[in-house]
Amino acid sequence: MTRLRVQCYGVSLDGFGAGPRQDLQNPLGEGFFEVMQWVFPTQAFRRMQGKDGGETGIDNTMVEQGFANIGAWILGRNMFGPVRGPWPDDSWKGWWGDEPPYRVPVFVLTHHPRAPIAMQGGTEFRFVTDGIESALDQARAAAGARDVRLGGGADTVRQYFRARLIDEAHLAVRPVLIGSGEPLFHGLDLRALGYEVAGQTQGERANHIVIRRSQ
Amino acid sequence: MTRLRVQCYGVSLDGFGAGPRQDLQNPLGEGFFEVMQWVFPTQAFRRMQGKDGGETGIDNTMVEQGFANIGAWILGRNMFGPVRGPWPDDSWKGWWGDEPPYRVPVFVLTHHPRAPIAMQGGTEFRFVTDGIESALDQARAAAGARDVRLGGGADTVRQYFRARLIDEAHLAVRPVLIGSGEPLFHGLDLRALGYEVAGQTQGERANHIVIRRSQ
Repeated sequence: MTRLRVQCYGVSLDGFGAGPRQDLQNPLGEGFFEVMQWVFPTQAFRRMQGKDGGETGIDNTMVEQGFANIGAWILGRNMFGPVRGPWPDDSWKGWWGDEPPYRVPVFVLTHHPRAPIAMQGGTEFRFVTDGIESALDQARAAAGARDVRLGGGADTVRQYFRARLIDEAHLAVRPVLIGSGEPLFHGLDLRALGYEVAGQTQGERANHIVIRRSQ
Repeated sequence: MTRLRVQCYGVSLDGFGAGPRQDLQNPLGEGFFEVMQWVFPTQAFRRMQGKDGGETGIDNTMVEQGFANIGAWILGRNMFGPVRGPWPDDSWKGWWGDEPPYRVPVFVLTHHPRAPIAMQGGTEFRFVTDGIESALDQARAAAGARDVRLGGGADTVRQYFRARLIDEAHLAVRPVLIGSGEPLFHGLDLRALGYEVAGQTQGERANHIVIRRSQ
């Protein structure tokens, strides 16, 4: 059974799942780079960038697991890019260059239709305008026997949690205060929605938490 | 120099510093007992209860440090008890029986005056009606060369953070979701207030974080 998984989702100690004022210079929002600092030194991340070396501890294992057995992705539009409103043209093709690290179909949630974009390396961006459930149905069909990974951002993750569509979420809590941005948990009663913490491991630079839907 | 320290302050993964619906049966609010479950198995806590045994790992060390070099405490009124409004009589003397674990003067914030109460073992509850700064001044004077510990609850800790009066805060983040209650961080921009994470240690049942005022 194809599961919907959140993986490697960074959260600051003070509960933010993205920084404020996201734009072209700050794809993650201001200050959020610090929250993701556990990813960048890992071997798995460096390989995706075409670089040698990198650390091979627990944080690295978590990054590797995040890409294991994934047959499709779902991204909120803000995670795909800084463009808002109707697409002015076809020039924006994501933050990741000509060969994005996904290598499978990626379903991008948007209110504005756009033709699919085939990228190098197997990634194809497909734009879904009829809501989160439709995106999940399409992603499941594309994933086959593999799982679907929900990439983010914060608001998209919250929407899928509220609809109880997430099977498992791996959060990486970094011991940093960013002070403002998009709260991940506030106003989201995960306990009432049937979620519980299923596991916890301290990595080199983040505290890894696995949340599962238990009911 | 006497510092104002928060110690062993439990926070749920989803950012709550107290549970909802605090009352006589749930002094910490519903569900918050789970957040404090890292304290109860420790040798230090069991000793305070007059019991033998208990664990002696990192969590235990954190409980011990919380009582080291403390010359006075400050508590919000809700942490002192469930009574609201004017004191109907002198019968409520805290949650902790005849011999509370403080053993030093404890300054209780309240809007309603009340005479001090001397308890067995050195604890004296003194009631402060003229605000958090006055309570801190009085606690500092009572503490002498030692530090003042701010016990809580969540709203009191937030007030002292907002006023930048806390020098150091040890938070114990438990990997549990309680879903509702009093948020510790929400609407509190600790970064803008000049705080940063100064240390982090994984204990047996909680992730210990030390926050310090850096400016």
